[in-house]
This record gives sequence, structure tokens and C-alpha cells, in this order.
Amino acid sequence: MAEDQPPASLPTRPKELAEEAAAPSKNALKKAAKDKEKAEKAAKRKAAEDAQRKESEANDISSDDYGHVPLVGLPSSTPAEVPWVRLSEIASEFTDTTPMDESGGPHVIFQAVAENARVQSAKLAFLVFRQGQDTIQAVVAASDTLSRQMVKFAGSMSAESVVLVHGVVKKPKEPVKSTSISHLEVHVKKLYLISEAEVLPMQLADAERALPVEGEEAQEDDSRPIVTLSTRLNNRTIDLAAKQNRAIFTIKDGVVALFSEYLRNLSFIGIQSPKLLGASSEGGSNVFEVEYFDRKAYLAQSPQLYKQMLIAAGWDRVFEVNPVFRAENSNTARHLTEFTGLDLEMAFDRNYHEVVELLEGLMLYIFNGLRTKYKDATETVRKIYHVEEFKLPEAGKVPRISFAEGIQMLREDGLEIGDFEDLSTPDEKRLGALVLKKYNSDFYVLDQFPLAIRPFYTMPSASHPYFSSKETGSSAPATVPDPNTGYSNSYDFFMRGQEILSGAQRIHSASFLQQRMREAVTPVDPNSDGLRDYVNAFKYGCPRHGGGGIGLERIVMLWLGLPNIRLASAFPRDPGRLLP
Amino acid sequence: MAEDQPPASLPTRPKELAEEAAAPSKNALKKAAKDKEKAEKAAKRKAAEDAQRKESEANDISSDDYGHVPLVGLPSSTPAEVPWVRLSEIASEFTDTTPMDESGGPHVIFQAVAENARVQSAKLAFLVFRQGQDTIQAVVAASDTLSRQMVKFAGSMSAESVVLVHGVVKKPKEPVKSTSISHLEVHVKKLYLISEAEVLPMQLADAERALPVEGEEAQEDDSRPIVTLSTRLNNRTIDLAAKQNRAIFTIKDGVVALFSEYLRNLSFIGIQSPKLLGASSEGGSNVFEVEYFDRKAYLAQSPQLYKQMLIAAGWDRVFEVNPVFRAENSNTARHLTEFTGLDLEMAFDRNYHEVVELLEGLMLYIFNGLRTKYKDATETVRKIYHVEEFKLPEAGKVPRISFAEGIQMLREDGLEIGDFEDLSTPDEKRLGALVLKKYNSDFYVLDQFPLAIRPFYTMPSASHPYFSSKETGSSAPATVPDPNTGYSNSYDFFMRGQEILSGAQRIHSASFLQQRMREAVTPVDPNSDGLRDYVNAFKYGCPRHGGGGIGLERIVMLWLGLPNIRLASAFPRDPGRLLP
Repeated sequence: MAEDQPPASLPTRPKELAEEAAAPSKNALKKAAKDKEKAEKAAKRKAAEDAQRKESEANDISSDDYGHVPLVGLPSSTPAEVPWVRLSEIASEFTDTTPMDESGGPHVIFQAVAENARVQSAKLAFLVFRQGQDTIQAVVAASDTLSRQMVKFAGSMSAESVVLVHGVVKKPKEPVKSTSISHLEVHVKKLYLISEAEVLPMQLADAERALPVEGEEAQEDDSRPIVTLSTRLNNRTIDLAAKQNRAIFTIKDGVVALFSEYLRNLSFIGIQSPKLLGASSEGGSNVFEVEYFDRKAYLAQSPQLYKQMLIAAGWDRVFEVNPVFRAENSNTARHLTEFTGLDLEMAFDRNYHEVVELLEGLMLYIFNGLRTKYKDATETVRKIYHVEEFKLPEAGKVPRISFAEGIQMLREDGLEIGDFEDLSTPDEKRLGALVLKKYNSDFYVLDQFPLAIRPFYTMPSASHPYFSSKETGSSAPATVPDPNTGYSNSYDFFMRGQEILSGAQRIHSASFLQQRMREAVTPVDPNSDGLRDYVNAFKYGCPRHGGGGIGLERIVMLWLGLPNIRLASAFPRDPGRLLP
Repeated sequence: MAEDQPPASLPTRPKELAEEAAAPSKNALKKAAKDKEKAEKAAKRKAAEDAQRKESEANDISSDDYGHVPLVGLPSSTPAEVPWVRLSEIASEFTDTTPMDESGGPHVIFQAVAENARVQSAKLAFLVFRQGQDTIQAVVAASDTLSRQMVKFAGSMSAESVVLVHGVVKKPKEPVKSTSISHLEVHVKKLYLISEAEVLPMQLADAERALPVEGEEAQEDDSRPIVTLSTRLNNRTIDLAAKQNRAIFTIKDGVVALFSEYLRNLSFIGIQSPKLLGASSEGGSNVFEVEYFDRKAYLAQSPQLYKQMLIAAGWDRVFEVNPVFRAENSNTARHLTEFTGLDLEMAFDRNYHEVVELLEGLMLYIFNGLRTKYKDATETVRKIYHVEEFKLPEAGKVPRISFAEGIQMLREDGLEIGDFEDLSTPDEKRLGALVLKKYNSDFYVLDQFPLAIRPFYTMPSASHPYFSSKETGSSAPATVPDPNTGYSNSYDFFMRGQEILSGAQRIHSASFLQQRMREAVTPVDPNSDGLRDYVNAFKYGCPRHGGGGIGLERIVMLWLGLPNIRLASAFPRDPGRLLP
């Protein structure tokens, strides 16, 4: 049968259906009558409502004073002569003692978030408006010039909507306890929605409760369950509106500002080293691979090699604030696959301790800056995460302990550990507690790490067998029987017993660098694509130098005592999370 | 014949050779005698040399005062009481009028690069030492306390070696013309090599000559050929030691410092948005793909969506200095695959021109800062790249021209171009020249671009058909017949006729954003992984906002009039270059 030929007989309608179509059943007739009745009723109702609405609108003396702000432009009734203000300006301009007559203070216009709204009666609604960290109470009261319809509109506003407010600043009868500005309130004249919020998938109040430390109970005794970190991060835009979160990121930017300021004042140049590399350079593992046109590229795990190449170029002192990428499949509370590195590198004169001193001064500058300039933000977070205040060393004298001394302290505390064994995270925390007890400081430096547990570019200590022969000369020393024994001119900085900075004197001699690349615990090839230019950089004159890399999120986490590093990253990345 | 069976007859030695082996020929005897004689002579010579060297060393009164600095530590003869100084300190401390007796000024120690060395006689060598941008002449003169051997060591030092110098600061008989410090010189007492330079593959003097504009002749008339950009970039560590290069990157960091300072003073928070994204978000093309454990990630092409999500979170004002990645296969003098974005986003009150005004103020602040604080660096570059000084608008009034007006100016100049046609790079340069002529400014703003040539998140103009109905409301307007006609609240900023900043008012309504995503010239899917969270961010209240993204390298290139953007990137990345 050809496909375009119609079938021999078309299917006919089933009899019942055909009948129904031909003559309606009794039931159907009843239903139709009912439907008609319903429709008539609905139409009547609608007409009544329309009439009521029209009447209401006609009677609504405030109809121009509330509603929606158009997508572009302003409501036509926005008065041009009234100043636009910030809540913080109002709060500081009109103090408790500013005289203000009964009819109120000045007229103001502002944009804010409606944190909540509450209808007191048909004639009265209260709202709380928020701008950043400032909140103020607003009163919408029906009057000769303000309709009940407008009171209803204001009182039924959905939480977190963004609004445009024209109001009069007044002194409340008694101080408002629930808002940050307690000595003033706003009596609303006009109120428009800029952006109406839908019902939030997560309440802001929940985002403003502490996240417990993994494995520990929630800090607060509350019947409402604590919203998990995962839910918070899935709804991160709402979560980031939480008071303590804005404070956390204000502090985070404070650290960047203080870091950059301190170093620029000491003649450091801020740099931007490449994140796309032609070859993986620092050992090969834990590196993300990128499709780069017809070949592969690799994401930088640190700016290490580039910082040093600029020192070789005679730049003397460089720093960088930059994203670093680690393809480490670690799902802990202290690892991220993308974080912010605060890196620096500098030539020194006499001894690498010049670098350590500068780094100590830098960290103290940051801590003191946080204590003074970022006190409020720190307090805001501390109200939610009740951590002990960070103890700074007395008289600015940072405890500097050699690795050997640290091992000794741990042994005296009962830990069995080898001379050159790397410290585990629990060991580090234990040592941190011992240092705190002995020196009364949450901040200290561990110096002279074993060479074997540091990267190939680390300079061995003066006491290392490499340098035991009396031979002088700035090129490679003779090979020694066990090159990976002994100590190195390297250091870690700790906050509350956790590492925040790792650094060292680097090898500035091309020939010795090549030797160490071959003799390191994990050897690398000095002639590989990723290392050739780096090695060559030291062939044309390079001063002795050292530096360090600081984890920005770690500083923030440990300063504030946050239970998870993800809380210090706006949109954290870990092996399981790439969104939002 | 089986392969393992030996050939029937092995080849025999040629007769001559056999004889020679059996009994040496006369020639061979003669040669052996000669060789013996040679060896004896060599041994004698060596013995004589050794004796001479020993005697010389024994006689070398300066043997402790020169040589190599050990890899760690200092030469034992380094005097502890002599201060370590910077050349800039010496230069400013001892002025032309500082009294200094014949025996000289103070003793100093410093580390420096030996820029060059020259033997005048067996008793006298001259060197030039460099520290950053400062150079000083050094004299090494044989005397009762300084040996000829040491003069020879100093005079034969390879250029660019790093040295440790102990010397006495003196006034030269006449000002030194070849060094930056002309009123002082150093009389060397001790001189040690910290890092001996090999012969450079590219001369620093070559790196300090201007790179010509592509297709143009070299600026200078010189017999030596200009070293190509590719050679310079292949030897970038040497290249970056060139005077103008250090100056370029001093200026680049100056732009970052001025940018951050201005914005932090205006309550902007610096942020770090993720560079690893779970989905490509801004259209899909030109994005680098990353292997992320068992799935794909994508490198951020801009922080656009994240900046806006933070505005939706109520952060009000954010900025970021960050690497941005563009997988664009463009090999031009103005494209890089990785560059530095200076981004900002802010809520505004009345009109998006508040954002334009802030951006204008920001750019003027940067330009004025470069003019004052970075004058010297700018001059250093200008000595090599002889570009016209950058013309700033009079009285700080930045010319702000509508796109329609720009098209009109180009038409009056004879260009045929459609009302809503995008400007090509030559068109932009032509318009820049016309603006310069009319307003006497190298800096101007082009406002109100056609909607069709801007990204989907751009807010259409108030005059757009979308908003022609009288309907108010902050959600999506009715669909219009041709949604991609008309203008938008968007702008570009130009320097010397080239775009450096692109920005706009953004759509703050989730429903209108979804509508625009579907109706854009290149539609995107609002429900895709990369856009879902972004769209949702606007559902829970978002103020009206706008912002922009600035290309840092473009500012530097155009401020200084560099012929290629690669010169403004320390280690530039393009489709063909990932190393060094």
C-alpha cells in the first residue's frame, strides 16, 4: 500500500461519543447549566470587584504615591527637590540631641531593602528598611493624605523586596530596639517597589545563624534546625545578604588592601603573572589541564616561578594578589580548588631573615589594621561565631621557633615524632596550642624546615652538608652522599595552629638549581618545557632572594574562627562544587 | 646462508695499518717525540703558572677582598660596622653641596648589578653599578691596599652579574654623564660576585630600543637591526630588565593602585569571583575548557554574572582586579588570550548616568595620578616610545557623545555607515580623531549603543519600544514586534580612539532578563546550568545597577602609546604563545 493513499476505512467515533455529540445527556445538560450559572456568578463577582476597585482607585487619594517603579526611569511623582540619602548619613547627621519638632525632620528619598513588613491595623503598618549594615524602622500610617489602600500595600510587601521610599525623618517615641538605627524612624510619604521579591527558598534569618563546626553540635539551642552549608552555598546570593557574610568579605578585602598598601609603601611592584602555562611546572600533579586551541595548557598552581624570574630581571621586590588553582581531590574544611594567593618575593642583602622580618611586619600590620579599621565588621561576625579574640604577640615580637625546637616541644608534650618528619594537621594544631601557652600568641613562625619536605627551589641551610666543604664560589657545590638530609632556609607562619604562609630563601644559582632539581626527593627535569626558561633566568645574574605565599581565605577563616574555609570564599570551588 | 654463520673469510687489515701496529713508522716516532716535548713544555708552563699564581696569591694583598660570595652567608671579611645602603639613598643623602674631603665620604656596602666593566690600564678599571633605575660609576684603582689582580678581576666582570660592593662614596672630578647619579661615584674597596652572568643571548641595549609599530619603519636610524618582539618575548627575563619595561610595569601597578584606592574610598568592596565555572555562561564561544576531575569546567571570560549576583545580595558596590580568559583566535597587536580586567558594579539611585559619572571620575583620577605620581616612569618610557602626551579634557569635563551623534560625525566626515551598525576598529580610531579635533581630548565616552550589538543583560533605553506602552510595573514588558531595534543604556570609554571600557545598566528584573535572553540576537537559555543561578539571583530583590569592565593592559598601552599590547603584559599569552 502506498503511503500517500488513505486507509480503506477511517476509524469512526465510538457510538456513545457520537450520541453525546448528537444529543446531550441529562447529566451533561445539568453540568452545562451549572457552568453557565458559575460563569455568570464569576462575571458578576468580577464586575463587582472591578467596580469596587474603580471606586477604590477613584477614592484612593494615594494612588500616585505607591506602586511599581518602571524598569527604566522614576515614578513621575518623585519630587525633584527632596535629597536622596544613605541611611548611614541620616543616622550620623541627626543625632539624639538634634532638635526636631513634632511635625518631624527633613524629607528624604532613599532606596532600600524591605527587610520585613507588618500590618498593625487597617490604618497602620510597620516596616524595617535595610541599606548595607544599617536598618531603620518605617511607619506607614493612614491619614487625610495617605490611604488605607497604601497601608495595605506597604504592610503586605514581601520580605527582601527593593523599594524606593520618600519619607520624613522623625524621632520615635521611644528608641527602636530591633533596628541598628534606634534614635530615628521614617514616616513614609511615598513607597514604590523597584524589585518585588518572590518567597525566598532560604530565610535570611537562617543564613544569619552560625554554621556548626563539622562533627560538633550547633552553638545555639533552637528548635529550628540549622540550615546546612550545602543549602547555604546552593542559595549563595541569598546567603551572602546575611549580615556576617557581608562583614566577612569586608574583612577579606581589608586584608587585600592592607597587604597591598604595606608592600607598595616598601617599593614592591604589584604584578600579574600568567595563569595559563605552557607546561605544568611545579611537580606535575594537582594541576588542571586546559584545552588551548590545538594543544594543552595548565592552570598555575602558584606564581612562584614567575615571581622569581622577575627578581632575576632585577625588579627587586614584587607582589601579587591572584587566583591559584589546585587540582587536589581533598574534601576537607580547609581546602579549596581555587583560592586567592597573596604572594611576594624580594631580594635581600645579608640574610633571608630580612624576608622573615618583613613578612612578620606585614602580618602584624594586617592584624593591627583588622583590629582598628575593621573592628565593627569583626564584631558583627563575632556575634554569630563566638570565637576567642585573636591573640597577638606582646610588643610585636613574633615568636620564631626552629623546626627542631618545635619537634622538641611536641616530644616533651608526649608526641612520638622523627627529627625530619613533616607535621600533620593535628600535630600543627597541637604545636600551636603549646606555643600559645608558652608565648601567649596565636601567631608564630616556624623556621628552618627539613630540606626533604620542601620544594626543589628551596635553599638548604648554611649548616647543610652541601656547604660543609670550605670551597667558596656561587655555583653548584659538590654532590654530597645524602643530599636530602638536613634543614633549609624555609619557614611557615601559623595562625591558631594552622599554616597560613609558606616561604623560603630560593636558590639563585642556575647550576645549583639544576643540581637540586635532579637530587630532590621528587626530581624534576631542568630541561623540560615548563622549567627551561625558569632555570635560564638565573644564568644572567640574579640576586639572593626569598619570599612567601599566603592563603587569603585562611587568614580570614582563622582571624574570625570560621568553621569552614568555604565561608571565606564568595563562590567556593571544591571537587564537588562548580556552581553557582 | 644462515644468518648466524660467520662469513667465509673475515676482512683483513690493510697492510699499511698492520705494519704501523707492529712497528711504528718514522712519522709516528716523530709525532710521539713531538707529543712528549709538548707535554713536557705544558707541564713546565703549568708549573711556572702555578708557581706564579702561588706567588701572585701570596703577593695578592687583596686576595680576601674579591672573589665569590658563598651560596649562603657572606664573605668572612664583610665589615659589620659599615651600613648597607641603596644607591637612591646615597644619591639623595649626599647632594652636590655636601662637603666631602679629598679622602672621600662614608663607607657603604651595597648589592648591585654590574651593568658594564672596562679596564683602563693594569692599575685602573671602571664599572657601572645598577640598582633598579639608579646607576652609579665605580672606580677600582690599584694602590698599596688594592692589588692589580683585583683590578683585573673587576675589569673583566661579565655584564649583568650581580655583585656585593664595599666602597667609599666620593665626588667625581667632573660630573659622570653616563650614569643616572652624576654627582657621586664609588671607590671600590671590596668586590664579590653573587651571581656571575653568562653571555646574554640578547643585549640589554637592544631591549632598550623601541619596537616599531607593525608595518612601520623603526623610529631610530641605527645600523644595528631591531630585535624582534618574538626574540624579546622568548628572552623575557632579560627583556624585562630593560629600563622602559620596569617603568611600564610600575605604571601598570600604578593603575591598579589608583583604581582600587578610588573605589575603596567610595565604599566599594574588592571581591574575588571564581575563575572556574561549572558551565560556560556568556554565550558559549571563546571559552577555554578545563578538565575538572571527572567533568568539564570553563574559565571565566569576565566576572560579569558574579558581580551582578553580589549586587543582588545587597552589596551595593563591588570591584575586582582579575585575570580574564578569552579563547579568541585573534593574532593582532591588541588582543591577548589572558589579560587583567578591572571590573566594577554598583547600584544607582536615579539614573545609570550616575555610574557613567563615577567611571569618568575614576578614569580622570587614574590619569591624573599617572601624570603626577608616575611622571618619572612615564618619562622613562617616553624617551624610548616617542608618543604625544595624552590629552585630558579641559576642566575635567569628559566629552560624552551619543552613538547616534558619533555616527553623524563619521558621516559628515564621509563614512557610509548604518544607524545601528557596530563600529570597526578603524571607524573607532577615525571617530577618536574627530573627537580629539572637536573637543581637544584623547579621552571620551560613547553612550547609548544600539541594543542589538550589546550582551543580553543590557537594559534597553527608556525610549525603546519595550517601554512605549504606558503600563508601569517592574517585571517584563509586553513583547514588541522587533525587540532588537533601538538603543540601550550602555557605553564604551575610549583612549586615543581605542576602546578601554565597556559597560551598561543591567536588567535587574528576573522576568525581563529571561525575556531578553530569549529575544536577544544570539539567544541563550535562561534555564541552562550556567545561567539558572544568575537569573534566580534577581528573583529575591535586586536594586537597579550598572557597571563596567576595563582592560588594564589597554590603559597602559594607550597611555604610553605602545605599539603592541604584549608590551603591557609581563608574560603575554596569545594563540601562539604559552611560554615562558
